[in-house]
Amino acid sequence: MASDRPPLAEQTESAPMRLGVLTGGGDCPGLNAVIRAVVRREIKDYGGEVFGFHDGWRGVIENRGEELSVLRLRGTLPRGGTILGTSRETPYMVEGGCERVAETMADRELDGLIVIGGEGTLSCARSINDEGFAKVVGVPKTIDNDIGGTERTFGFDTAVSIATEAIDRLHTTAESHDRIMVVEVMGRHVGHIATWAGLAGGATMTLIPEQPFDIVEVCDALAKRHAAGKYASIVVVAEGALPIPGTLEVSEPAVDRYGHKVLGGIAHVVAGEIEQRTGFETRVTILGHTQRGGTPTAFDRVLCTRFGVGAVDAAHSGNFGHMVAINANQISSIPLADAVGEGLKFVPEQLWETANVFFP
Amino acid sequence: MASDRPPLAEQTESAPMRLGVLTGGGDCPGLNAVIRAVVRREIKDYGGEVFGFHDGWRGVIENRGEELSVLRLRGTLPRGGTILGTSRETPYMVEGGCERVAETMADRELDGLIVIGGEGTLSCARSINDEGFAKVVGVPKTIDNDIGGTERTFGFDTAVSIATEAIDRLHTTAESHDRIMVVEVMGRHVGHIATWAGLAGGATMTLIPEQPFDIVEVCDALAKRHAAGKYASIVVVAEGALPIPGTLEVSEPAVDRYGHKVLGGIAHVVAGEIEQRTGFETRVTILGHTQRGGTPTAFDRVLCTRFGVGAVDAAHSGNFGHMVAINANQISSIPLADAVGEGLKFVPEQLWETANVFFP
Amino acid sequence: MASDRPPLAEQTESAPMRLGVLTGGGDCPGLNAVIRAVVRREIKDYGGEVFGFHDGWRGVIENRGEELSVLRLRGTLPRGGTILGTSRETPYMVEGGCERVAETMADRELDGLIVIGGEGTLSCARSINDEGFAKVVGVPKTIDNDIGGTERTFGFDTAVSIATEAIDRLHTTAESHDRIMVVEVMGRHVGHIATWAGLAGGATMTLIPEQPFDIVEVCDALAKRHAAGKYASIVVVAEGALPIPGTLEVSEPAVDRYGHKVLGGIAHVVAGEIEQRTGFETRVTILGHTQRGGTPTAFDRVLCTRFGVGAVDAAHSGNFGHMVAINANQISSIPLADAVGEGLKFVPEQLWETANVFFP
Amino acid sequence: MASDRPPLAEQTESAPMRLGVLTGGGDCPGLNAVIRAVVRREIKDYGGEVFGFHDGWRGVIENRGEELSVLRLRGTLPRGGTILGTSRETPYMVEGGCERVAETMADRELDGLIVIGGEGTLSCARSINDEGFAKVVGVPKTIDNDIGGTERTFGFDTAVSIATEAIDRLHTTAESHDRIMVVEVMGRHVGHIATWAGLAGGATMTLIPEQPFDIVEVCDALAKRHAAGKYASIVVVAEGALPIPGTLEVSEPAVDRYGHKVLGGIAHVVAGEIEQRTGFETRVTILGHTQRGGTPTAFDRVLCTRFGVGAVDAAHSGNFGHMVAINANQISSIPLADAVGEGLKFVPEQLWETANVFFP
Repeated sequence: MASDRPPLAEQTESAPMRLGVLTGGGDCPGLNAVIRAVVRREIKDYGGEVFGFHDGWRGVIENRGEELSVLRLRGTLPRGGTILGTSRETPYMVEGGCERVAETMADRELDGLIVIGGEGTLSCARSINDEGFAKVVGVPKTIDNDIGGTERTFGFDTAVSIATEAIDRLHTTAESHDRIMVVEVMGRHVGHIATWAGLAGGATMTLIPEQPFDIVEVCDALAKRHAAGKYASIVVVAEGALPIPGTLEVSEPAVDRYGHKVLGGIAHVVAGEIEQRTGFETRVTILGHTQRGGTPTAFDRVLCTRFGVGAVDAAHSGNFGHMVAINANQISSIPLADAVGEGLKFVPEQLWETANVFFP
Repeated sequence: MASDRPPLAEQTESAPMRLGVLTGGGDCPGLNAVIRAVVRREIKDYGGEVFGFHDGWRGVIENRGEELSVLRLRGTLPRGGTILGTSRETPYMVEGGCERVAETMADRELDGLIVIGGEGTLSCARSINDEGFAKVVGVPKTIDNDIGGTERTFGFDTAVSIATEAIDRLHTTAESHDRIMVVEVMGRHVGHIATWAGLAGGATMTLIPEQPFDIVEVCDALAKRHAAGKYASIVVVAEGALPIPGTLEVSEPAVDRYGHKVLGGIAHVVAGEIEQRTGFETRVTILGHTQRGGTPTAFDRVLCTRFGVGAVDAAHSGNFGHMVAINANQISSIPLADAVGEGLKFVPEQLWETANVFFP
Repeated sequence: MASDRPPLAEQTESAPMRLGVLTGGGDCPGLNAVIRAVVRREIKDYGGEVFGFHDGWRGVIENRGEELSVLRLRGTLPRGGTILGTSRETPYMVEGGCERVAETMADRELDGLIVIGGEGTLSCARSINDEGFAKVVGVPKTIDNDIGGTERTFGFDTAVSIATEAIDRLHTTAESHDRIMVVEVMGRHVGHIATWAGLAGGATMTLIPEQPFDIVEVCDALAKRHAAGKYASIVVVAEGALPIPGTLEVSEPAVDRYGHKVLGGIAHVVAGEIEQRTGFETRVTILGHTQRGGTPTAFDRVLCTRFGVGAVDAAHSGNFGHMVAINANQISSIPLADAVGEGLKFVPEQLWETANVFFP
Repeated sequence: MASDRPPLAEQTESAPMRLGVLTGGGDCPGLNAVIRAVVRREIKDYGGEVFGFHDGWRGVIENRGEELSVLRLRGTLPRGGTILGTSRETPYMVEGGCERVAETMADRELDGLIVIGGEGTLSCARSINDEGFAKVVGVPKTIDNDIGGTERTFGFDTAVSIATEAIDRLHTTAESHDRIMVVEVMGRHVGHIATWAGLAGGATMTLIPEQPFDIVEVCDALAKRHAAGKYASIVVVAEGALPIPGTLEVSEPAVDRYGHKVLGGIAHVVAGEIEQRTGFETRVTILGHTQRGGTPTAFDRVLCTRFGVGAVDAAHSGNFGHMVAINANQISSIPLADAVGEGLKFVPEQLWETANVFFP
């Protein structure tokens, strides 16, 4: 019990605020958990108010949304999706969009805007803030974990967890038949999910965008391993995994004979090459959007809750133009410029070396 | 405690037996649970012995395997795969295969053979038994639930459960974006998994082999539904779902531009058509072999255990040429001829009508 | 697609109805799934209306509730709890309660009332129907699976599944330490959950109300087993498990030294005796209400959905005073008198014998 | 692919080693994952050997164990428990124990010993190393996360995850009945599990050892909350939670009227007081050893794998007397003295303040 601590307002000498909040970009487990924490922190601890915009930046541009209350958020902590809706629209895509953001902020009498989103949404947030259209605090959301300045983004632990469960299930199937399973996970530009899920699932090999692969080497390693006894192999492939230029032709997107785009372009190509070169039956699983949906893991819920509380605290500390971050198990805020200006965060070398320990 | 019941041998006046056991065909959750129950029942209750053949019928043909003990099976109840290995080979594929089965049975001094497998494995079991090469009791294994004479086969509940979890996760992603998700589940010839998972997951529509679909109707229904408000849709497609002849060209298997076979032929085709005809973003998930692997559900473990005990009891009752079955919550044995001679078991009409209640 | 079937009203020549629905008694996974199916079937297929009473029978007595729509039920299929609330109150507990039920039915112009509940709620439903206060169709809800006339009640599969997961986790802990784990599961009067979870989890022994136990025999069996090598044991105890009279004093409820009621009376007593008599470290887990909450399994969701559709169909067939039931995989309706008049449904002998195969 | 990096021996100029490994203390998810990584790293990358001692320190004292190979560890990554067995015995408990450790190290020709354990096991490891009986590298194992010098210990994420799932399930049960649920989680001396699971599960209040509670305040807060509308409450209690001295008499352990120790002493006392003081029905769940067993989460598997690789690297760098640690997402090694000499690691203030945001 912290019953004898002074009221927060007294501690912080911070007046109540009226904050807006939006969720932008793709779906991600834990969005509601962040919103809930924002609402709880501002309303209960600072005595302020929170307005939720609908459908991401679009709701700000069109001045659409709802007043949020503690009650409105009840029961949402474990729920996937976002009660506010989302979109990929940004004010810069719309004629006069930025001005309308400023108008909405004034009309709704908002002191600041908490923007929950990934690379695209936060880059926009940074510009909107720097150009003075709204005072913004960012919250880094992406299952890809590729935003700089923070050890973790929320959604990542859940995505890894889902991919790992799938790999667990594939193991026994592979083992019973001396087979190769190719499983494609998300990660267009970075291999965090693939690397973690590969390590956690005990994958034979993992192919990620940061480390272009040579299909001949991959097949040789698999063949040698199977030759050494009755084995089964699981190859985890990030959707953005790339062959070393010139070693394997891949055009994106692949299309089938009816001209339909083929999901899992790279997984199909890799699986086809493996089957042809090694002679082992090879099967493909494509987890697709199951990695982005549903209830967040306990880890992600705690992270989201801390991020939500931290974002409100950042606003009350005047740290606009910042993004909340977690480093060394402490929540802090860092300039958005440091997070989204530096390019994507890649799989750290130490982790990739550890992954290599388990390759054939 | 049933401490005062007489010993089973006394109850049944059945002498100890020496039984063989094999697992054939594709992987399926619960194989080890059946083997464990067979071993426990025969060794502990009847005082007999059990020999486990490796790699399905191949192990019988090649006279390969191991003596099984209660200890050997410890810890295997929840484990996916099969400790005995499996294969798709049958004695009829091999020159002199049936005779070799008879020789192995004699050489190992086996009184009977418990064959755990699907349609193919059991059809073979029936012939082997009827032609006198070995005395056989079958155990119906298939995640597809399409074997006649039994309400359930094992593996099915687990497959439905995995597919349902995936659909649950897709819902929130779909909802956040007003999108259509196409998820392909197993079922080449029957739609049991698709129908159950569709019902359990709250799918918008389900396409199964038994009910050829008209893609125009499907798209119209989806379009009308989305027009009526902000909605998301999930379409579950059995891998063997078929368009009404003449309405949509599908060639099997589809290949990509590199000539690689494309997994999820029908899901890709359906998704492509939906996106084109309705204009809604459509995404594909292909669960693949994750549906066949990993730990069985509690339901399947109980079913497997009852099947294993029942198979041994059938052997001791002289019911060779039979398959164990569950009907009205009672385990019994029925002639293999009634199970595999009658063609596949289709989705019952009452259940399909219930599924239709939830279509648009 | 069943696009060419005639409209249901035409098929059945049944006019639209206005139905009430309530959920009574303890919480149970799948309540919302039943309500959703009732609403969907009546509104979409028969063109009628559904009124949901709040807090079980209390809502009928007090004429409180809400009009239900397809939209109101969106997203509730996987959700635990009940959107209508529940209570243990019945009209017979309240002065003039039955008359008020009749008044509410008239006031709301309801043609029938769908009552989702366990033994108590359904017994009341039967009387209310037979005495003419309301026309009722029952839906059998109980995690205990102890209602007669139906192979399954909903909630049971979920409870078994949760208990099995817990047993799975206890195994590795027990194995690492040569220890005995006692896990108490629900089941005051019957041992269905204990028997199924014991079978599915690979329990060493299971104690259920239907089979009074002799603690000396239990301990001897455990001691003998551990003496035979390094083993660990898991004993599943239904909360209503009873010692053979005179063999072990148990008073219910146990209280601690502060006079507080002690949960897990029987588990503590059994564990204490085992530790004392065998000398092995013994630990207790009490799953409590975790068995009644949360998302239902895929199996239960399908069952609930079929029950909900079946209940509406029963009303339209004029089968009031009936309860929906599932037998041999077909939904039908049976007189409530056959279901709740005959006493509880006990663990079937065949299943209990199978459980015994795995005891020491 | 890191195919062009030089062999590790060349990179590190480190000769192959012969390492011992043991697992000590209580069970914990991820033990096998650490052993697997140790074996893989030493044998595959350094060309050395690994000997596994059975039953913790006892195996070293008695010179018992087995040579480990990559094959022996196959399939163990997801499995709970430890293939080596464990015990709570230390060399200091046995006459001449330390000398026997030295003899075993010499007899087995071991260059070092990797000790996987919690506070007790690692404190012993430190002394054994400092007194020259064996060269030791520690790996911090405890579900309680209370070891200093490392942000995380393995097993913690899994325990939090299990407790959170249980709380999720209790929510719907509580909500349907306007009830208070008390759930006891592990944590005798620290409240990490309780704090994290409380945050992740959306608990109403959390009671931990570090923050003595006033039962009157707890009850008042709950009563006020329920008075404000129809609510349900979940109170998470660490097993070592303590009342402010003088406010509530608790003697440990509680015993029932038969003299049996009562598990969940504090949960029963707290629940009893709440029910009596608030009048709301209160129910208890005790998760017990389910928190320590079963398959580790993906997070814990990655952590274990990194720890195992890091421990071998520490030995090859000559960092004996160290423990591997993770800080700021980097694996390093720190002196055991810094980890186990400083007392337990408590719940950080920032996290506890965040938890308080959600209390009434």
